[in-house]
Amino acid sequence: MLILMHQAATEEQIAAVVRKIEALGFRAHVIPGAQRTAIGITGNPGPLDPGFFEGMPGVIEAVPVSRPYKLTSREVKPEKTVVRVGEATIGGEEVAIIAGPCAVESYEQTMTVAEWASRLGVKFFRGGAYKPRTSPYSFQGLGEEGLKILAEVRARFGLKIVTEAIDHESADLVERYADVMQIGARNMQNFSLLRRAGRARLPILLKRGMSATLEELLLAAEYIMAEGNYNVILCERGVRTFAQHARNTLDLSIVPALQRLSHLPIIVDPSHGTGRREQVIPLARAGVAVGADGIMVEVHPNPERALSDGPQALTLPMFRDLVEQVREIAALIKRMEREPAPMG
Amino acid sequence: MLILMHQAATEEQIAAVVRKIEALGFRAHVIPGAQRTAIGITGNPGPLDPGFFEGMPGVIEAVPVSRPYKLTSREVKPEKTVVRVGEATIGGEEVAIIAGPCAVESYEQTMTVAEWASRLGVKFFRGGAYKPRTSPYSFQGLGEEGLKILAEVRARFGLKIVTEAIDHESADLVERYADVMQIGARNMQNFSLLRRAGRARLPILLKRGMSATLEELLLAAEYIMAEGNYNVILCERGVRTFAQHARNTLDLSIVPALQRLSHLPIIVDPSHGTGRREQVIPLARAGVAVGADGIMVEVHPNPERALSDGPQALTLPMFRDLVEQVREIAALIKRMEREPAPMG
Amino acid sequence: MLILMHQAATEEQIAAVVRKIEALGFRAHVIPGAQRTAIGITGNPGPLDPGFFEGMPGVIEAVPVSRPYKLTSREVKPEKTVVRVGEATIGGEEVAIIAGPCAVESYEQTMTVAEWASRLGVKFFRGGAYKPRTSPYSFQGLGEEGLKILAEVRARFGLKIVTEAIDHESADLVERYADVMQIGARNMQNFSLLRRAGRARLPILLKRGMSATLEELLLAAEYIMAEGNYNVILCERGVRTFAQHARNTLDLSIVPALQRLSHLPIIVDPSHGTGRREQVIPLARAGVAVGADGIMVEVHPNPERALSDGPQALTLPMFRDLVEQVREIAALIKRMEREPAPMG
Amino acid sequence: MLILMHQAATEEQIAAVVRKIEALGFRAHVIPGAQRTAIGITGNPGPLDPGFFEGMPGVIEAVPVSRPYKLTSREVKPEKTVVRVGEATIGGEEVAIIAGPCAVESYEQTMTVAEWASRLGVKFFRGGAYKPRTSPYSFQGLGEEGLKILAEVRARFGLKIVTEAIDHESADLVERYADVMQIGARNMQNFSLLRRAGRARLPILLKRGMSATLEELLLAAEYIMAEGNYNVILCERGVRTFAQHARNTLDLSIVPALQRLSHLPIIVDPSHGTGRREQVIPLARAGVAVGADGIMVEVHPNPERALSDGPQALTLPMFRDLVEQVREIAALIKRMEREPAPMG
Repeated sequence: MLILMHQAATEEQIAAVVRKIEALGFRAHVIPGAQRTAIGITGNPGPLDPGFFEGMPGVIEAVPVSRPYKLTSREVKPEKTVVRVGEATIGGEEVAIIAGPCAVESYEQTMTVAEWASRLGVKFFRGGAYKPRTSPYSFQGLGEEGLKILAEVRARFGLKIVTEAIDHESADLVERYADVMQIGARNMQNFSLLRRAGRARLPILLKRGMSATLEELLLAAEYIMAEGNYNVILCERGVRTFAQHARNTLDLSIVPALQRLSHLPIIVDPSHGTGRREQVIPLARAGVAVGADGIMVEVHPNPERALSDGPQALTLPMFRDLVEQVREIAALIKRMEREPAPMG
Repeated sequence: MLILMHQAATEEQIAAVVRKIEALGFRAHVIPGAQRTAIGITGNPGPLDPGFFEGMPGVIEAVPVSRPYKLTSREVKPEKTVVRVGEATIGGEEVAIIAGPCAVESYEQTMTVAEWASRLGVKFFRGGAYKPRTSPYSFQGLGEEGLKILAEVRARFGLKIVTEAIDHESADLVERYADVMQIGARNMQNFSLLRRAGRARLPILLKRGMSATLEELLLAAEYIMAEGNYNVILCERGVRTFAQHARNTLDLSIVPALQRLSHLPIIVDPSHGTGRREQVIPLARAGVAVGADGIMVEVHPNPERALSDGPQALTLPMFRDLVEQVREIAALIKRMEREPAPMG
Repeated sequence: MLILMHQAATEEQIAAVVRKIEALGFRAHVIPGAQRTAIGITGNPGPLDPGFFEGMPGVIEAVPVSRPYKLTSREVKPEKTVVRVGEATIGGEEVAIIAGPCAVESYEQTMTVAEWASRLGVKFFRGGAYKPRTSPYSFQGLGEEGLKILAEVRARFGLKIVTEAIDHESADLVERYADVMQIGARNMQNFSLLRRAGRARLPILLKRGMSATLEELLLAAEYIMAEGNYNVILCERGVRTFAQHARNTLDLSIVPALQRLSHLPIIVDPSHGTGRREQVIPLARAGVAVGADGIMVEVHPNPERALSDGPQALTLPMFRDLVEQVREIAALIKRMEREPAPMG
Repeated sequence: MLILMHQAATEEQIAAVVRKIEALGFRAHVIPGAQRTAIGITGNPGPLDPGFFEGMPGVIEAVPVSRPYKLTSREVKPEKTVVRVGEATIGGEEVAIIAGPCAVESYEQTMTVAEWASRLGVKFFRGGAYKPRTSPYSFQGLGEEGLKILAEVRARFGLKIVTEAIDHESADLVERYADVMQIGARNMQNFSLLRRAGRARLPILLKRGMSATLEELLLAAEYIMAEGNYNVILCERGVRTFAQHARNTLDLSIVPALQRLSHLPIIVDPSHGTGRREQVIPLARAGVAVGADGIMVEVHPNPERALSDGPQALTLPMFRDLVEQVREIAALIKRMEREPAPMG
């Protein structure tokens, strides 16, 4: 922490801040400046509360300077994490594609999409059995029945199952039936659920909250990792802004920003990130081009009949186009990363 | 729902939309216009998905026009709800003041604030026993031990206890020890917890999520009410924006906007709403002046030593000033409402 | 500026940063910490670019710590500015009320509102002769003809005229006809116009941009003051957020935040700040309660016929109620400020 | 416009709304529904003010349904606009690259970047002679001297010059020296300047305002086109949000959204869009992958010495990498668009 003193702060005011810092058991470093004096603090084990100092006479501002996340940080673990799910990976060489319906609605609907996914060589299958819906009057998912359908998808097609847990009870069931447990955007700061996820034996796909900062996302991952589960995949899915041309504003710059600070893999969800079918393929391409480790998309055999989020679901032919395009761009990006610019 | 057709939409395209509406079992109303044709839909039991239509040839946009909330709505219950907690009320004649420390940290800290609250005639006491903290390394609350201290506050001073539940387990304990169960901003869309709150025998204080719209807040209340608990108090506590001069942006215009649409009482939390001690009293005054049914504030005998949210806690003398000022403004506002402008 | 070094930064990397600081002509202060070393910089005449250091090996972050505004700052001028317009003031004892139609549409419409304003004892009259409109097809104002009508309002009723300039040409005319020149939200960073305003002989009412930070608002005022015009009035008029229940989100916490940092008076515009007539009076009350130096509102004799911003215009009877309520709250707030809490 | 009536609206209230619509000279279409009645309005020449109806008894809401922009719309001109600047184009087959320093600082700095641009086959050169700066104490550009250096770049390397005008005076000079006139984000709603741009003989590069909606951006373009200048290029450059990991949040979903509604070309500026050098190349790749018609980036031979926006400027070797990568992705995207998915 750095304390900035008023231009007109007196020697006594500066001394009082120093005494306070020392009384708290830390060390004070007075830095006289042309316009004003600043005082650095060291020796504190964790972040200090700016309020300790901001009310003191002569103090203008207390600026926090340490980072609160640890296990998620590249400072602690420089090499990138590769999450392994059987023979499939997220964060490795291959750009992962996770696809499936928003909600598991029926056996037929689910199998139709799964068959396409399987034929297209997609390795991860998503589908919600528990749906957090804004309205209590909307379809809330099939529950365990939905999980059984997903388990059948795995048995039949060998696809890895990604599905959401919304509380401790559903987490127990997801752990039994699925391969990756998803924590949704609305639960990104449901700390009780994050701790439960930290004790799960499955990798966790953690979606960014609707207005979460990068730091809050990493701290949510930190909750999971602090319980011992180090297999966390981050997911950008759009944030809430004033813009109206999409349901959310997909924030792709968080991908390189996270990659710089954290070793965890990060994927992009252009379906929730845009909420509009016609924007999904362009933004999926952009997500791969920006360097994400994977793409998660929603697909429905008949989007107009979907029980949730129909407007953002790809049709099956669009799904095929998406897989094709994502793969081509992924191959190009990987090649460009391997062979830095030959020119000049 | 209203379907807007392209200026150049053909008769056949319009007819196709009409057929689709009728195939879904609803009624279509074609409205020819100077520039374009619109098609109204009636007979639908709930909101329709715009995606049913937006992909059809000739269709520009599908505009939803019905409101998804019911039990919270003034259309269903025109008269205002008064939540009764013993002899105290929220939503009635008196502007409620809810005050106490952010977190219950110790017996002494809690009793000191409670004694001031009691002396000042405040009726509701707040204090967190379970604290949802952004970092797993921050103080997480005393748990049941904290609830016991709060119960002691009630026994000794007759104050009504308002405290937060963060999952099913803590909800059971809050129900046992407290008078009002708080659902925090981060859990506003934790639907599993909302349903649990709907089965509680206590009134629920529901805080607006960090980026929740008015509609989402009412639908969260709808989750609680749909389970049979009609005693819900809404709370504005600031939203997340680009602004940096406060921790959140307190959105006071939601107070009259909610009052117009819903019968539920609404209070304002200027402590979380600003995050800065020196802004709390001015914004509390503003909250009462805008017409809120109450104010919730954080108080600490020694804010610099607070284990959470110290920078926003009022000192005890500031607390006294706040109560004084809030009461004077409340009295003036109530008088102005009773006696509309005598002039002119 | 404070440079934070990586935990694993080497002595040589630290030395390189120090050398660079010194090469730039400044002084470096190395502050060793438990986890990492920080390096303070002093002697720089203005803000430094973090990019000077952020790319260097071993550097995590460069944190700017000085404030860029000067003339607007309480550090430079501790006592509050009172803007005098003839015998009327903004920033003094009396809470100013500025009222009038959004746009000057006709002689009759303008005179009707002016007569009410005059009868109610309001001292400032607003009305747009040049209207910045989102669409080129909307009414753009009467131009000089409108200014002449405003001048007639002054002649007849003695009201002080506040009206907007949108470019150099209109600024010349506003200077000739009006008493206070308004710079609108969309032009808050039209620096060419700000400089022109700085050379005007009139006080400037500067509205906060739709997504301007506190700092940007003060720097816009700094542009005006740097040209020699020290009579600047700041105006909060709502910012753009995701919220839909009002046209903008009125950010009242900027009032105490500005008062702490700047000596300039600040007023609140609840008409643009909410965009909805039924929210204007409650938010005007809140604006006064939070401590603003004045309120600016739009009034129309027949809002349904208004050529711009009709939905937010008060009717004449609402205008009377507003003046009444604002005055009562202002009197109470001023009394509370004079006689701090008598209790306890 | 569609008027929604209250569930309990009386026949008389409905009739009153109909009478009002007819009194305004329009036609009313009553649409009875299961829950409530709606009333459609046709015959209105332009957008109606919801306030005409929202205050009437029995009315819940008035929903505007027509679009305010015309000349920018694909409804009016379905085929895409290709802006021609000599032999170079924006909006055609080739993805345009516009590169150069943020500000023209000196002859040497400008020529160094221009020589690299030329060698890399880039066709458009950017550089600011007039710099809108947040602080009046920052470097404001070289003015006409800067324009002369840019003209020298054109003479020597044949590059097309893109540079910003900030008021009428600078617009006159830009028109004399440059090939494309840029209107910056802060001036997107400086309507006086937009009209001047509409009378310029140069194509206009119009940057999206910091918190502009898609509709506002198109209406700003509409101001230019309404004056007769149809050569407008739109530019996404990031919007302001709560996120802190980048200076702005680059909103790539506006690219497909604009392409659907408007025929104008759209480019992406990842330099301002992120504000951080290390994010520029990934986001430039994403911008091309999402389908933009071009990329605008800032390059500096020595970013640490840049007089403005140094932290976001690419170094010369990064510039070379960017051009390489952008071209490869552009080629792939164009090929994918020509040959839609070949798979089964």
